[in-house]
Formats: sequence, structure tokens, C-alpha cells
Amino acid sequence: MEQRYPTRISMEEGMEMLLSAVSQIEMEEVHLLDASGRVLACDVAAMEDIPPFDRSPLDGYAVRSADITAAGKDSPVTLKVIGEVPAGYVAARGPGEGEAVKILTGAPIPEGADVVVRYEDTSFTKEAVTLYQSMPSGSNIVKAGEDVRSGQSVMSQGDLLNPARIGVLAGLGYERVAVYKKPVVRIISTGDELVPVADKLSPGKIRNSSAYMLRAFLQDWGMDAQLCKIVKDDERSIREAIEAARIGADCVITTGGASASDRDLVLPALEALKAKIMFWKVQMKPGMATIAAQKEGTLILGLSGNPSAAVAALFALCLPAFRKMCGRRDQQLPMVEVTLPDGFEKKSPGGRVLPGRLEIRGTTPCFITQKRQTNGMISPWSDCNLIGIIPKGSGPLEKGCVIRAYSLAT
Amino acid sequence: MEQRYPTRISMEEGMEMLLSAVSQIEMEEVHLLDASGRVLACDVAAMEDIPPFDRSPLDGYAVRSADITAAGKDSPVTLKVIGEVPAGYVAARGPGEGEAVKILTGAPIPEGADVVVRYEDTSFTKEAVTLYQSMPSGSNIVKAGEDVRSGQSVMSQGDLLNPARIGVLAGLGYERVAVYKKPVVRIISTGDELVPVADKLSPGKIRNSSAYMLRAFLQDWGMDAQLCKIVKDDERSIREAIEAARIGADCVITTGGASASDRDLVLPALEALKAKIMFWKVQMKPGMATIAAQKEGTLILGLSGNPSAAVAALFALCLPAFRKMCGRRDQQLPMVEVTLPDGFEKKSPGGRVLPGRLEIRGTTPCFITQKRQTNGMISPWSDCNLIGIIPKGSGPLEKGCVIRAYSLAT
Repeated sequence: MEQRYPTRISMEEGMEMLLSAVSQIEMEEVHLLDASGRVLACDVAAMEDIPPFDRSPLDGYAVRSADITAAGKDSPVTLKVIGEVPAGYVAARGPGEGEAVKILTGAPIPEGADVVVRYEDTSFTKEAVTLYQSMPSGSNIVKAGEDVRSGQSVMSQGDLLNPARIGVLAGLGYERVAVYKKPVVRIISTGDELVPVADKLSPGKIRNSSAYMLRAFLQDWGMDAQLCKIVKDDERSIREAIEAARIGADCVITTGGASASDRDLVLPALEALKAKIMFWKVQMKPGMATIAAQKEGTLILGLSGNPSAAVAALFALCLPAFRKMCGRRDQQLPMVEVTLPDGFEKKSPGGRVLPGRLEIRGTTPCFITQKRQTNGMISPWSDCNLIGIIPKGSGPLEKGCVIRAYSLAT
Repeated sequence: MEQRYPTRISMEEGMEMLLSAVSQIEMEEVHLLDASGRVLACDVAAMEDIPPFDRSPLDGYAVRSADITAAGKDSPVTLKVIGEVPAGYVAARGPGEGEAVKILTGAPIPEGADVVVRYEDTSFTKEAVTLYQSMPSGSNIVKAGEDVRSGQSVMSQGDLLNPARIGVLAGLGYERVAVYKKPVVRIISTGDELVPVADKLSPGKIRNSSAYMLRAFLQDWGMDAQLCKIVKDDERSIREAIEAARIGADCVITTGGASASDRDLVLPALEALKAKIMFWKVQMKPGMATIAAQKEGTLILGLSGNPSAAVAALFALCLPAFRKMCGRRDQQLPMVEVTLPDGFEKKSPGGRVLPGRLEIRGTTPCFITQKRQTNGMISPWSDCNLIGIIPKGSGPLEKGCVIRAYSLAT
């Protein structure tokens, strides 16, 4: 009795299946100083205005507009200065008729004043200030709530906490904030050819470089990514490694052994573990040899041993699911249309994932790829901020044609 | 005797002065697992090929092209299978005339073989394989050094270590890597109006939100940014705080007190400290009230107390200098030309810094700003990846006009 699962599915199908299979994990409370880059786990409404009071944006004199309606270059108006209010203080009393209060940047507007006249536009002594123009009520006053209004929804569950949002939370008095926990992902490298990074190579061996690269991508995407030991091409060892890695992990990733030969043992190991196989093989190049499975709530991804195929699968299939696990609202990468200034020589019978860079030439957004680029190369992923998707059945692409690409840049 | 320094300089002058005033700091060695996001402190040349040997990209049979020149659908050629080579191993011997070696993905090409025939294109038994087409020498062989060639320069001093570069370093055997130390930046918030984030507000007071936002930006840019205590508007307190913060710091940033009133005490404090004032006041809005100084090798930046003015100064004046301190080769942000689909209503007599987002509409790169945007608002910085620069003397900008912007996205 063989287990049944979809195979040779499209990239879009694979992405959707992964996305619907996962959910975000639990939340924790962190100090605001540790919250940058984390994902907000609650909606935030302002309980106060920012700024909390009408304030002066400059140094000058707070006056009543009614007192200066007649002021002009040739008809100056002189008011009595009754006090001074710097930032952080409140004026003892506001200006009455014929009076002014000296005011400094950031100070609250004294009661009764409805205009601030800039310092440079006056002449003054300690006791009196002379004004040379009339100004409409409200001039040079920053109203309470200009930036954020009390009661206003300022952030939503699933928002990524970037520096400006950290600033808004600080302004509203949130010293601690509820964020989603980082999903724990463990990476198991399989393959008799692999040796640890620090080892000298003997014939036929290569270093375990994929795992380091995948871990760095996953960390950048907000996951807690951890490396496991290298595992030999042995079904039982792979099985044991997956079971050990699953403990406390939200996702387990294997590299290598995901294809169809009798030395490709990740799928047999997953079947022996009675994991639910979601799919095997995706119509994309590189990245065809991708397995997705689940066991007891843990997502298990069997990626290719070819580093660039593993990365292509991460970007084109897995990233939205990872974002969902991280709690992000924006799960799908935005899709943009970009011009291929140099075309692309190869055919793409099965569909292709192409790393590239957004470059605006003149005012044309272009998709820039490395000239010499093959499936085995990881260097093209090094400055990649666009993931070009070439539909299956495409022939060589002409210079100047437009393709669709997932954007990491916009 | 007053100290002399330039004032009301242009943004470009300010940026250049800061850039030429700083230098990168010392290096340290870190484990590759801790190196992502750090800046490489040495050039890296490959001492080996990646891949290190000619390898098979698929499962099949390694044969001599000379043996199959006559092969065709109607004239199959049968070769004797003399062995099998999986990834991680070396064939005991290569194929002689009339012989084939079964080969798996990632295995080294056996000596004498110059073609790999895909498994699916053959029929086979354990002892023999039958082939139905001739193939040119080199078919289905990934050559040693395809990704990286021994002797090739692969990375340069000043490169940011992103995930793909981490993968290349791992592949070349670098378990530890020399990176630049993170510059230490201390942030001092000055102002009688400021209270700690967790405090309740009393009249006239606001929370110390700027410092949290600035710190998060600086952390994102690769600095070790630390918050100091809030300091009152008192020259001696500011002086003492700056002197304390300078110890072990590469840069000290103050917020507030950078303007011209008798309550603006950062400049007097710096003069009293005999710091070398580099400039005061920059023709930009927001961010005019910016002081730059140096004392004994420490850069001291006096930013506005207005959060968005402080951020504007960080982006438009300081970021290239910060990147240089971090050791980055790419110090200047790339400048792109982008369309303003909605125009911009306000005049910009002194030049303006406008946060925005790159959005590709159709195939037009557009500069998207928040509709309701004033100098005091920090929310527009929250998804900003373009820093629009509106030249001084500009009037309102029409819909569809093109402006220049620093790009954080490309």
C-alpha cells in the first residue's frame, strides 16, 4: 500500500499548499528595546494623542490673533510679555488682551493664545514684543494628535516592528510589547559527500555550505534557525535525525537525498516515520526535487542538496509560509513587472526561478541577472532582491521583454 | 574669541563633511554562524574550486562519448556496467572502452568518462546499460570551479556578508572570518519635556520616543547603539553626559537643544568641551537644526528634538558616514529617478527630505508618500525605502513629475 500524494505540482500550488498548512505560533512579551524586527501580536490603538498637547514648532511669542489683526509693517503692535514657557513646562497663565507669552520649541501653547509669532519676525525687550504682521488663528501651532490621534488604530497584529513603529510605540508609552515567538527551524544536512566547514576536503567530498546559507536566510526572515549535525545517506540515520530535530521545532529542513535514486532516502525516511507527505517534486528549475511533509504539527521540508535549488525552493515555495509562521500579515511577496534588458538565452520548459536585482535604468525598472549563471551557482543569490518567475513552456526570452518577479525590494 | 565653523550648509556638503571626518574602526574575528550582516574586513580569494571536482548534476551513467557516437534510436549501444559511484565517493576505476559507471547526483566524474547519460534515457540491468543517442563530450558534467574558480577573488574588504556570501565562505572552508567591529553609538536625549517611556504624562511632557526609534535605525545599519539617560536642558548636565558617553564610543548622538534659543544648550556645551564644531545648521527641512562636531576621534552629532527631523538628518546626512564607520565599501546610497504620481503641494524654499516608498505601477517606478504628512510626523518613516530629495527653491511639484531619491531598496 503506497501512500498517495501530489507530485510534479506547479510552484503556485506548492506555495499555496505550504501556506495553508502552517499557522503562526504563540506570542511572548518583550522589552521595546528588543522588539525591532519582531512581529506585533496584537492590534495597537492610541490611548493618547501624539503630540499630547497643542505645541509650538518654533521659538517665538504666543499671542491672541485678535490682538494683531491691525498689525502691519507701518502699524506695528506692541504687546506686554507676561512670562516665558520652555518645553517641558506649562505657562503660569495665558496671554490676556494686549499680552504675549514667550514660547520655546516644543512647549505647550498657553491658554488663550491661538498664534505663535516667530522670534525672527519680532522685535522685543524683556518686557514687550512688537509685531509687524497679522496672522490667521492657528498659525505656527502643531495641534495635539497631529501625528497620532487618541483612539486611532496605529498598528495591527502581524505588522513588522520597524524603527519608526518602535518610535510610535515608545511615544504611546509601550515599554513592553506582545510579539510572536520566532519559529524554531532546524536544518539537517544529509549526504555522504558532506564534511564540516572547517575540514580539509578529500576526493569526492564537499563542505556543508548550504546549511550555513539557508540558516542565514531564515534568520533574516525572522526565524530561529539552528544547524544539526551532518547525516549520512542512511535511511535510519535520517529518520532518527528528523525525529530528534522535531523536538521543540516548528519546522525541520533537510538538504540532499530528495530526488528519486536508491540513494535518495529522505522520502523513504518520512514515509517510514508516517509523516503526512504533502507533495514531492515541483515544476521549477532549480528546485524540482522538493518534498513537503508534516508530522504532529511540525512542517518538514526536504530540499535539494544543490544549494541554489534549495534557496530557490525557499524563496519561491516556502517564504510566504515562513512569514505566516512568524505571524506576518503580509505573507505574499509583492509581484512586480520588470524589463529584462539582456534577455535570457535558455529555454524554460518546466518553469524557472531566477535570482536577480532591481535596477532602475532611466525610469525603467530592470531585472538584472548575472551573465554566467547556472543552476549550481549560489553567487547570483548574493545581491538578489527580485525572484524572477519564468513560466513553464517559455523559450529563450528576448532583450527588453517584461517578466514578473517577486519583489523583496518594494 | 568665538570658534568659527560653517553654517547653513547644503545637505550634500554636510554629508561629504561627515563622510570625510570618519574612518572604519578595528576588526575582530567571528564564527561564520555569527557573521551574517557583518562587514568583511579582508579580501577573500578562493584557494579551491567550488565545486572542487567535475561532478554529475543528475543520476545516470558516466561513459566515454567515443563509445556512443554511433548510438541512435534504431542503433542502440550497450555498455558493460563496471561499478557505481554515489556522491561522496570516488569510482574504483573509470570506464574503459565499452564500459560505463553508474553515477549519482553530486558524485565525481570517473576518470576517462566525459559524458553522463541521464538514467531516464537508458535501459539497464545491473550488469549492462543500453544507450539510444550520441552526446557531445562534456554533456551533463558540471566542471570543477563552475561556481567559484581557485585563485579567483570572491569577496572584497567592505562587502556586507549576506546569506549567499556566508554560503560561499562556508564552501571555501572559512569557519571564522575577519569582520569590522560594530561602531558603538550612544544616544543622549536632552530636554526638560522628556519623561521615560513607561511614565505617565503630566502637562507639557512627552515621552522619550526619538531615542528608541534612532537606536532601532542605527542597529539596522550595523551599529551597536545604546541609550543613555535623559538629560535636562542644563549646559553642565549636557556636558557631563557627553563626556561620559564618549568613553568607549565611536559616536555620540544628542537629540534636542540643537537650535538657537537660550534654552538650546548642546552647541554651548560642545564649545565648552572644546569639541571641534564641523558645522551647525543645514539647509534642509526637516533637520535644519543639526550640529556636527568631533572630539578626540569621537563623532558627536547634535540632532533635533523633533523625531522626524532627527531621522531625516540621519538618512540624508549621516548614513554614508555610518556605513564608512562600519567598514562598508558601498557608502553612498544609490540615487534613482522616480515619478511623483500625486505631486507634492508644499513649496521647498530650503530643500526638503521626504520619506517615501518605491512602488512600481505598471512599469513606472513611483515615489509614494503619505497624503497627510507634516514635519513632526514619524509614521511616514515607517515603511520608507526611498529618501526623496527636493532641491532648494522648489515650488509645489506637479503630478507626474520626476524627482531624485536615495534608494534603500535597490
